[in-house]
Order: sequence, then structure tokens, then C-alpha cells
Amino acid sequence: MNLSAIYHRPESEYAYLYTASEMRVRVRTALDDIAKIVVVSGDPYDMLNGVWQKEADVEMTRGLATETHQYWEAKLYAPHNRLNYGFNITGLDGEELFYGDQGFEPLIDEESDANDGLMGSNAYFKMPYFQEIDRFKAPEWVKETIWYQIFPERFANGDPSNDNEGTLPWNSDDHPTREAFYGGDLRGVIDHLDHLVDLGINGIYFNPIFEAPTNHKYDTRNYLEIDPHFGTKADFKELVDKAHARGIKVMLDAVFNHIGDESPEWLDVLENGEQSKYAEWFHIHSWPITTTPKSEYDDDSNYETFAFTRHMPKLNTANPEVQDYLLDISTYWIREFGIDAWRIDVANEVDHHFWKRFYQAVTALDPDFYILGEIWTSAQPWLNGDEFNGVMNYAFTASIIDYFANRKISADKLVSNLNAQLMLNRDQTNQMMYNLLDSHDAPRVLSLANGDKDIVKQMYAFMFLQQGTPDIYYGSEYAMTGENDPDNRKPMEWRPEKQDHDMYAFMKALIQLRKDQLAVLVDGDLSWHVEGDLVSFTRSLSGTRLIATFNASEAIYEVTIDEGQVIFANHLSDGILEPKGFVVILESEAV
Amino acid sequence: MNLSAIYHRPESEYAYLYTASEMRVRVRTALDDIAKIVVVSGDPYDMLNGVWQKEADVEMTRGLATETHQYWEAKLYAPHNRLNYGFNITGLDGEELFYGDQGFEPLIDEESDANDGLMGSNAYFKMPYFQEIDRFKAPEWVKETIWYQIFPERFANGDPSNDNEGTLPWNSDDHPTREAFYGGDLRGVIDHLDHLVDLGINGIYFNPIFEAPTNHKYDTRNYLEIDPHFGTKADFKELVDKAHARGIKVMLDAVFNHIGDESPEWLDVLENGEQSKYAEWFHIHSWPITTTPKSEYDDDSNYETFAFTRHMPKLNTANPEVQDYLLDISTYWIREFGIDAWRIDVANEVDHHFWKRFYQAVTALDPDFYILGEIWTSAQPWLNGDEFNGVMNYAFTASIIDYFANRKISADKLVSNLNAQLMLNRDQTNQMMYNLLDSHDAPRVLSLANGDKDIVKQMYAFMFLQQGTPDIYYGSEYAMTGENDPDNRKPMEWRPEKQDHDMYAFMKALIQLRKDQLAVLVDGDLSWHVEGDLVSFTRSLSGTRLIATFNASEAIYEVTIDEGQVIFANHLSDGILEPKGFVVILESEAV
Repeated sequence: MNLSAIYHRPESEYAYLYTASEMRVRVRTALDDIAKIVVVSGDPYDMLNGVWQKEADVEMTRGLATETHQYWEAKLYAPHNRLNYGFNITGLDGEELFYGDQGFEPLIDEESDANDGLMGSNAYFKMPYFQEIDRFKAPEWVKETIWYQIFPERFANGDPSNDNEGTLPWNSDDHPTREAFYGGDLRGVIDHLDHLVDLGINGIYFNPIFEAPTNHKYDTRNYLEIDPHFGTKADFKELVDKAHARGIKVMLDAVFNHIGDESPEWLDVLENGEQSKYAEWFHIHSWPITTTPKSEYDDDSNYETFAFTRHMPKLNTANPEVQDYLLDISTYWIREFGIDAWRIDVANEVDHHFWKRFYQAVTALDPDFYILGEIWTSAQPWLNGDEFNGVMNYAFTASIIDYFANRKISADKLVSNLNAQLMLNRDQTNQMMYNLLDSHDAPRVLSLANGDKDIVKQMYAFMFLQQGTPDIYYGSEYAMTGENDPDNRKPMEWRPEKQDHDMYAFMKALIQLRKDQLAVLVDGDLSWHVEGDLVSFTRSLSGTRLIATFNASEAIYEVTIDEGQVIFANHLSDGILEPKGFVVILESEAV
Repeated sequence: MNLSAIYHRPESEYAYLYTASEMRVRVRTALDDIAKIVVVSGDPYDMLNGVWQKEADVEMTRGLATETHQYWEAKLYAPHNRLNYGFNITGLDGEELFYGDQGFEPLIDEESDANDGLMGSNAYFKMPYFQEIDRFKAPEWVKETIWYQIFPERFANGDPSNDNEGTLPWNSDDHPTREAFYGGDLRGVIDHLDHLVDLGINGIYFNPIFEAPTNHKYDTRNYLEIDPHFGTKADFKELVDKAHARGIKVMLDAVFNHIGDESPEWLDVLENGEQSKYAEWFHIHSWPITTTPKSEYDDDSNYETFAFTRHMPKLNTANPEVQDYLLDISTYWIREFGIDAWRIDVANEVDHHFWKRFYQAVTALDPDFYILGEIWTSAQPWLNGDEFNGVMNYAFTASIIDYFANRKISADKLVSNLNAQLMLNRDQTNQMMYNLLDSHDAPRVLSLANGDKDIVKQMYAFMFLQQGTPDIYYGSEYAMTGENDPDNRKPMEWRPEKQDHDMYAFMKALIQLRKDQLAVLVDGDLSWHVEGDLVSFTRSLSGTRLIATFNASEAIYEVTIDEGQVIFANHLSDGILEPKGFVVILESEAV
């Protein structure tokens, strides 16, 4: 056995409560190395004549695999909410051993060594107590949500009276500049809510809407005001109420890592220096503050900023005054306007201490509140149940794009990458991940696919059938294009003759498919099958099996399917899966 | 390369701030598999023409090893408090690859693929920001502390007027029963503080002293009162003040997992049932409560308890009222009496949510407060800097006992086990671990060694020279014996003719040795050398090397040492290390 590959970590994504009474455990081993793993478990205090008594043997299921690892899974229960557990591992080479908190030992049973000595039953791993309060919670509504991301300055201009000076006509330029204004506002969103309803959307993620000088508004001037060019608080209240009336949830963008340099707090620091009552709100290394950068990446700044962006001074969230200020803002928009979620900008550069207070504050107001962090990399430290519910799943996106659009990785590598991402998180966390193909921070997916709509359809279908809550970036339903910022922030295409109505129909049908098959897509087990350039996966839940097969190649594949089971497809005809085609079938025991 | 063995976990014991500005990283690989690892790092926003710029290459040090794994370590710094980092790994087979947040890739440099595509520099691991507020803090005074554990009912009877009815004469029985009282009290401790000063002790850990019916007092009746048989609050105040005046810190035992069944809260529940204002303070599954157990491990109880102990009902620490009640107690004894530390009983069965509030509350009063958890197994979930500072290091103890006393494991296995334990925690956490050879919950070490005092001396010397803060269980300085509870709780031996004065002199000298060599013992690097039955380790710090060699066998070993460098030894004569002997030498560049 490859002992050095075997890994388990108590109280992590390897050992956690899925529900109040169901614990899930994983073990990671080398690929193709292990024949069988049995979890031995029992109450830690169940002793007989000084010897600990195991209560249950549960054989682990062979779970997901990567290029290098096999994951194993089991579900455990505890009559008294406490559990000792360990793993009896049998290698393909026939070797057997016990793996527990003190490492590897010869296989043990009730009578053996592991129960002797000082450590006794502490040779086992522990879930010391099933703590419901510590369990990672997944709000039910998020599982059902199809998100739509709106960059407010570019979605629709519903009220020209609040436009910025110099606002450009809506479709005046194929490629917006970084500084342009086009007049998008909240009224424009209200006017088009029924467009979203028709598409099937039930959640909107708004880029920042608070008062700020730029078009993107990540340089907040005042967190307690709607930007006047976007509208008023009355407009926002109307928007939230009308969205809610249509079953649409509202998520706002919380930019708490930094503030704008036109904020009163920063201006006060500039004016009063060390005497400013806000001097401790920032990270200022010396006085006076130097505000004129020498170059784009000027290392001589004497205050900390977001990236090297001088007009975004970093807030000192370790300062309780700053914490209270931001928590007041966080709860204000929930209390007064009833928003349902915060998306947290640059979430990983703010301290955990603050996010734990934040989680307490917002979930005290609304236990079903959703907190989404912008974190591009592995995010376990934020996803333990007391900070965020999910993160923007760019790593997941990247593999889908590299496979379908870039043709840069093999099908096996695609599966390996996606499985590795899934195994970073608890099962219920994976249901909360925000899956996306593009955003204001990434090129539009149709541009990445060099304008090939069939590839885009493959990617959306693939993403919508995975665990996680899927997102559509505004305009993708009409096949809008755009390279990186600012090109990915073009004004929404509202001219019918320029809209791609075929893509719209596809998106609408895909959204409906996800809603129709929600249970198996949220809770279903996942397994993969790769054959040449065909990649298939099966989602299965209590007798229902949804099987999706994708042909990302230029070749034609014959597939054996029962036409009556096909629920969604593209480029499938007479059992032939054409290049860039896919097919989704549904098998049910009832059928 | 054995890729499946390679492991790193951001923001864990594998990647953490050691000081505000120094980050430490570890990587785990298979043993004897890797030639070299270089950490590539830089600011995540340092881009040139859209390509991320690495700033530093740091070759990792080969760190500790276990039977299966080699650990590698490096220290990293970040001018802007943010860091991307990844590992260029070279196998002994010559293979080279990059290991980052997205797994393994071909070796990359500034120009290569890993900087392309959607993920860009997110292919690297991240320390997104050096958050001082989230850093694990290690109170300086704990590093200097030699602990002495007192079981108050058995240390000294200073005031016979407060004795329980039926109290037995101090040395009336060689083997106390579970129910016996001997009259130990706080006055007895005050009377013997100078004994502790003479020995060199500068910290006392007291088993519970609050009002409770049993001799061990783990079944609290009132957390806000000193048990009347132990004395008064005035006595305790005098004790703390006199201890502090002698440079001795005071740690009390916090039994918050459960309360005693004679507490007013539980009695109220018994009397008023569901109508009790304390009904939600416990975990009661149905009414009325059944209090008569059918057997020792009666599964029919309808309320949750500590283990299966009916007279210890478990507190519901998820209830904010219970939290506030316990936090009031926690802070009361700090505010009013100035205690320095809490030792937390059954720490792992109380929720993390509560411990985070607890940490906030006590460190707000005293930033240098020490919180020690009773956790026998791996304890990472509690040791991230926002719950406990250290845990009772029984796993460490067990290996020392299995090697020196039980002769059950090899020297290689001893080293492997100890290294595995060290690699579970951050370096500064290892400095906070409470190292012990015995306690009220384990047989006395001299009994485990079958009365062989030379073996006991080896074990104490071995433990005192490791990282972590060492403890002596009351009476070990006089070579007291005792099997498991209640035999390990004999009245302290105060009769000079029954005391082992040689052991006392040994302990005193060992304590002085630790104090003399504190810097290298707290901060020094650790390396091992095993040769047959001789196990040696070296602690080294800036030019000082402390080298300890132990002969746990029955054989005689010739050792080549400079007698002038010997600072401590047992059974060493003329270069011969006799059975059960050891020698400690000190090399200094200045010499």
C-alpha cells in the first residue's frame, strides 16, 4: 500500500455533519491502490471491562477520483451524538491495517492493542459531539436559484434624468472604454424584471450600487446611499419588492476590503492626517500620506490599498470601530430593504475575525441569508460554516473552459480537476458554490469560444447539470461577446434584431431543465465515464439517473440511447452525437 | 515521484503567520522521494504586461520526518502583506514539477502557461493578507512555565476546621477509595508554596475548586463559590496573591461541558420539568426525566450527560443564556482574583462557537491569558488562534511511555510518532502544548515504569528538553506511585522519611536546566539521530546546540563526548552511557 498517500483530517471537509444527525467521512488514498476500507465506529465511552467497544462497521463507497487520488466516503450515525471512528484499510496487495488518530497500526479489533495503554480508544479519530450550532448550513432557496449577474451601469437605462454628465448613447460603441458611462440604473432593472421572469431567473447578483464615482462603483463613497445615477432608495425598495413578488432573490456586492478615496473617511484622513478620527481606520505606514503614484505598481505608497490601486485605500477591519461601521451597513440593507444575500468582494483579503462577526450579524437577522465570497482559489478556511456559504467557483469554470473552449486539457484531466475541486468542500458546501462561466472580471464565454455558440451551449449545459448554483452574466442569453474588462461590460443588447433568439430559447429551456430535475441535480451522486473524446456523467438519486454525454471533439460518435429518455440535446440525430453536441437522458425506476 | 503523497493546505499548520511579518510554510511528501523543493512567491498583484511576476525563490529546508513522510519547511516574507506561493518540486528521480492551488503542472516560470488563461496567478496558493488579528498568539510567560498539577483534596490539609464529615487521616490508607475525603484545601497549598518555589515551579494547575459534592469536584454545584471544604474566596485570593508574589501563575479547571446534578439549575429542571426556566439549558429528549440508571452504560437515559454519568448532565452551550452564564463565570475569576489561565475539561465536546466567544471574552480582559484544552487526540480545529493556546499533550506522553517504560515501540517509531504530533501544529502552538507524563486521569509514571526511578528520570529529562511546557503531577518530585484513578490521587507524601530526596534533587536540577537553557528549548530547531537503542536529539538556535542522548536499553554504550560540555546526565561514567542513562551536552560557538 502507498501509506504516504492516505489522508484524513477530523472536523474538515473529510469529517463533517451533513445534517444534524448524519456525519459524512472521507478518506483520500492513492489511485488504484486500495481494495476496501471499512469504518469502525462507536460511542467513545462505550467501555466493557476497560476495553472500548466498537458499535458499527460500515464499508466505504468508492467516491470521486483524480489523476492521483481515490476518495472514499461513508455516512455515520451516533445514538449519543459522539463518535470514535477509524479505518480498516485493505490494499490491493492484500495488506491490511488500521488508520486512526495516531497513524497506522496493525489491524485491530475489540481485543487488541489499540485499546490498551494510555491512549486507549483515543487511537481512533473523534467527532467528539454532533454540534448542530457548528454545522455548515446550506439555505434551501439557494439550491433552487438560477442567478443572473447585472452590472448596473450597463443593463438598462430606465431613467435618463439621473444620467452622469457625458453619458453616451446606449449602443454608441462596440467597445466601451474603461471610463465610459451609459446610463444604466435601477429603473432599467425594474423595467426588465419580466424579461428575467420569462427566462426563468430567480436570483439577481448586482455589482455595487452604492454611491461611488466610477462606473463599476468598487470605490465606494458612501455605503449607506444608492448611487444617485442609479436611482434612489425608493427605487431600490421598489426593485427588491417587485423582484420578491416575482420570486426573485436579490444579492448585493459588499466591498469591505477597501473604500473609495472620495469617501468622507479617507478625505478626513487626508485633511487631518494623524489627528483624523479615522486615522486608525486604514493601514498607514507613515505621515504625511503620499497620494501621487510614481508608476502603476508604485511600491513607495505609504498606505495599503487594494492591489496597487491608490484610489482604493484598504480598510483596517481589525479595528472594532471599522467592524461596527461595516456591520451596521451589512445589516442596514437587510433590515430596511430585505436583501437576501451579500456577495463579498476581495473576500480573502479581509480577516476571518471580521467575517465571523459578519456571519453572526447577518444570520441573526435572517437565518436563510446567503453569503458568497469572491475567492478564486481553494477556500476551505472561509467555508467551515461560520463565514461564507459559498464562493465564486472560478476554478471550476476554468477547467470547463480549458476543456470545451480552449481544448487545452483532456477529458480525463477535466474530470480530475472538477473532482479535485469538489473534494475540497463538504457535500452541502458544493451545493452552495456559485458556478459561472464569465463575469465582469473575466472575458465573456462566447469570446473565449471564438464565437462558437455550440461550444457555449455545451458549457452552459455542462455547468447547469453540476452541483452548485448556476449563474448567467447579463446578455449571455442573447449571445453577447466581450473580451476582458472593459469589453465584457458592454451595454445590454436590447435591439431585437441584434439579439440571438436561438440562444435565448436554449437558455430558457436549460433553466427549465434544471428546475424540473432539481432534486437529482442538487443531491444526486456524481460519477464519470470517459471514452475517447466523449465525456459522460451520471447524477443519481433514489432511482432516478440523469446521464449527460458531451462530444467536445470534431469527430462523430454513435451513441446507444433510448430516444424516449432524451430530455435535452444539441446536435444529436438518429443516434449520432455530432461534433460539439450533447445529450441528456433521464432514467427512472418508475419508467 | 510519489505525487499522491504530496500535501499542502493553505491557512493551516502548513501555512501560517509565525510573527506579524514572518510566514511559515510546510509541504509533506513521501519519505526518501524528493531531492529539492523551491518556494516561488510574490505579491499577487505584481503584474507586467498581464503576466504575474514572481519575486522570490526560497529553497525549503528538509524538516522532520515520520515513518512515511518527509516534511519540508520555509520562511516567507511579503512587502505588501500579500503572497502568492507555489512549490517547484524536484524528485530523486529527476522529475520536476510545479505544485500549486490547482494541483500539479509542468514546471513553470514567469513566461509559462500557469500565468495564462482564466486562473492566471491563481494557480498559486495564497496567503491573501498577513492578518495579525487572525494569527495564533503564544503568551510569552507560558513558554517559561514549569507547571505543577495539584489535586486539591489530596495536596495538603491546612485547615482541619473545614474538613468533610468522615474525613480520613492523611496517610491512613495506601490506596484511597473513589469516595474518600482526606481534607486537602487551599490553606494547605498556601502553606506549601515555598516548597514549590524551592523546586522551581512557576505555574500551578488546580483540579476543580468550585463547590461540588465529590472529592474531584468535576460535578459542579456552584461555579461562583469556592468549595467550603477547600476554603473561602478570601483564602483563594490570598493564594493567588501569594503565588503571584512568588512568580507562580495560577490555572483553574473549567468544567463547562456539564454541570453537577446537585446544581440549582438541574434541581430546578427536576422539580419543574418542562416549565423550568432552565429546561433549555440541557439536552433533554423527553419528559419526565428518568434519573435512575438501569446499568453503568444505560442507553435509556432521556437527557445527555458526560460519558454515561447521570450525575453530570451536559450543558447546552448553543443556548445564548448558557453561554452568557459560563462567560460570566469565566471572566469573574479573572476580574476578581486575577487567575492566569483556564484548563478546559472535556474541551472537545463543547461547540467551537462557544469557545470562540470564550476566547474573545477572556483575552479581552487579559491578552496574555492562557487557554489549555483537555483534548487527547489531534486538536487542529481548536488550535487556529481563536479558541485554545494548547492542549494536554497525552499523545506525546503516550509515545514517551511506550518507548521508555513499556519498551513497546522502537526508537524509530518513537521519533516518527513525536514528529507526527509536532507536524499537526504550528511552530508557536507546539511551544504552548502542555507536556505531561501523568495526571489525575492517568496512572502515575513511576507505576507505569514498574517502580524504576531511572526510567522515570529518563522520561522527565526527555520531556523537559522538548518543545512544549512541562508539567509535574503533585508528588512526582518525591517519587509517589499510583495506578489509575483513584490510586493516582493519594494524599501527598509530606513525611520526610517516606519522600525520595534523590528524586527531588533530580527534579529540581532538571527544572533549573530548563530555565537555564530556555531559549534553545523553546525556539530551537529539532533534529534526531537514532543509532541502535540510542536515541539522540539536537535542539539548536543561533550557534547554541543542546544535544541529549538516551540509552533506553539494557546494553552499555560508549559515547564520545567532551566532558566539559556535559550539563546534565544520569548513569554516565567515563564515556560509558549505562542502561537507562542519559547525557545532555551543550555546544556553543562561543566555546
